[in-house]
Amino acid sequence: MLWFVGTGINGHLGLSLAAVDVLKKCDIVYVERFTSLLGQTDLAGLDAVAGKKAVPVQRWFVEDGREILDAARGKQVALVTYGDPLIATTHSELRARAAKNSIKTSVLHAASGIASIMGECGLHMYKFGRTVTMMSEPNSAISVYNTIFDNLLAGCHTLVLTEYSHDEDKGAFFLDPCAAVKMLLEVERDQRHHVISEETFVVVASRMGAEDQSVVSGRIKSLAGVGFGEGPHSVIIPGPLHFTEEDALEALTMSLDPPSDNSKAIKRISSQMVERYAPKAKEALQQMHNILRLEQGDKKGMFEVLDNAELYIADAERFLLQGKHELAVLSMGYAEGLIDALRFQKGINPWNP
Amino acid sequence: MLWFVGTGINGHLGLSLAAVDVLKKCDIVYVERFTSLLGQTDLAGLDAVAGKKAVPVQRWFVEDGREILDAARGKQVALVTYGDPLIATTHSELRARAAKNSIKTSVLHAASGIASIMGECGLHMYKFGRTVTMMSEPNSAISVYNTIFDNLLAGCHTLVLTEYSHDEDKGAFFLDPCAAVKMLLEVERDQRHHVISEETFVVVASRMGAEDQSVVSGRIKSLAGVGFGEGPHSVIIPGPLHFTEEDALEALTMSLDPPSDNSKAIKRISSQMVERYAPKAKEALQQMHNILRLEQGDKKGMFEVLDNAELYIADAERFLLQGKHELAVLSMGYAEGLIDALRFQKGINPWNP
Repeated sequence: MLWFVGTGINGHLGLSLAAVDVLKKCDIVYVERFTSLLGQTDLAGLDAVAGKKAVPVQRWFVEDGREILDAARGKQVALVTYGDPLIATTHSELRARAAKNSIKTSVLHAASGIASIMGECGLHMYKFGRTVTMMSEPNSAISVYNTIFDNLLAGCHTLVLTEYSHDEDKGAFFLDPCAAVKMLLEVERDQRHHVISEETFVVVASRMGAEDQSVVSGRIKSLAGVGFGEGPHSVIIPGPLHFTEEDALEALTMSLDPPSDNSKAIKRISSQMVERYAPKAKEALQQMHNILRLEQGDKKGMFEVLDNAELYIADAERFLLQGKHELAVLSMGYAEGLIDALRFQKGINPWNP
Repeated sequence: MLWFVGTGINGHLGLSLAAVDVLKKCDIVYVERFTSLLGQTDLAGLDAVAGKKAVPVQRWFVEDGREILDAARGKQVALVTYGDPLIATTHSELRARAAKNSIKTSVLHAASGIASIMGECGLHMYKFGRTVTMMSEPNSAISVYNTIFDNLLAGCHTLVLTEYSHDEDKGAFFLDPCAAVKMLLEVERDQRHHVISEETFVVVASRMGAEDQSVVSGRIKSLAGVGFGEGPHSVIIPGPLHFTEEDALEALTMSLDPPSDNSKAIKRISSQMVERYAPKAKEALQQMHNILRLEQGDKKGMFEVLDNAELYIADAERFLLQGKHELAVLSMGYAEGLIDALRFQKGINPWNP
């Protein structure tokens, strides 16, 4: 039998009573250190609690998994991991492999770092959109930027986990939150969707669960002077805030600035389009009316075209207010097409009025 | 001082060693029962572990909070809650109020029900979009449906928590997963975005952390015969699946059908529009060409309009492939406007060709 045992986020003292019972009766206890924030004290504490020497193992050992599965065929084996045991996909994979090999498994859940961060920063968990991880590799910032954009449009907060790795020999590598934010500001310069600026209000959560855990909130421009120290860090970009969230941010974090709504600056591409094109279309409509009024002959069909264009511009603006974004853009394009057809026929270049 | 102590999801045995230390030294231990799945055995276990009688309190008592805050001014007070203590917004609010009243607080995180469900169903946590709660009240289903749609478009899984409440007198009320799914199928009949059908592959997680916890996966049509029993239940609608997720679903859940990708059936509204309107516009273009060819007089301007319409239809289809959804719709609308302007002038009703 293979037990997946989480330590939670408070070192070995994060182990649950149920987990301790399991560890005591296990024949072998592996402790997985690659995602690990478990220090020497915690390893010694784990040994004491389990009543046996836990075997520290590396990432490759868990990924390979054969020795663990072999042992679990005839013995009670525990794999102890930091946080909740099923958050890392490696553990979920190992569990599926065990099940396929008819090895019974059971999971002792524990505090997950991700859920704890969401709670500690005072934001409502159900308002978080997709969580992303930001690596130091520059291209990583683009998908993080897009996720923040999508989440803000949906009225959601974004938790950005930043790169963190721990190597037995080289020690810890972590991406500094200021460096992460700077990478996002660089993407903004290209994309210009007003997703992030020096005014953006963010929360930086560092070393969650450790004695020196810190949660700092403020505008990006205020973060420059803050030393965030060792990782792991995460950066939260909140969306619209409930007043209880504002209260919690001010009361429970090291608050450098009053909380503010980051979603106010952003606009859907559809809104940007209709708001930019509707006034231009109205001007062109007026121009065509003036031209047609001075002309001779049967202009009934052409006036009908202009009347329709006017209705469709109004439709576009109404659909936007109703949240029917695609219909708004379709109507806007249609109105422009109607007007420009006449402009082509009159020999006016629609794109150079 | 006020301690927020989570029990995790395994009854009182989900308490961490750190939590037990805190409970032992506290003067007063309140145990909050409104979100609670803590039975009599757990309450007795909690008393034994804490070395004192814990005081069960109702929802209103925690929401009101004054007695708790008053006690915490001079004493060591713990508020014990099911799951992770900061997931419920009530607790986060109480913590902010304590901080504003200069009462020191500390949180002992524990396994959260939400994170545990995500892990237990074998899906990758970072692929979950926004989590939603479905109430038995019929209008609730519409926003749940929209969230699933948005999440599927973004390639994300959706965790739908279903209504669950526990009343000292009336016992537990819960929404049955089959009833929840039926409500979503009804919304589909109105909205028709192919978000959900009898073929949709879902996961139903029930009573997470309890002895009789169950995780069932399969197509909606296969769920009808399954008795899911008492709540709380949640329904997961997965998006695109990684092969390790497929493996985990098959190996670790009670698998009624092979996993399948629910995002294949859905299309963005922009894609639906362009795919529906482009062929019609091409037909109308051909019709206008035929009419103009038979006519006398200077038709240069009109042919120029048709040439432009043709280019814009091609643009719309290309933008769609490039993921530029708004530009695709705008171009489609523009092409239709160009063509219809000529149809108006020729006395052809564009909407009755």
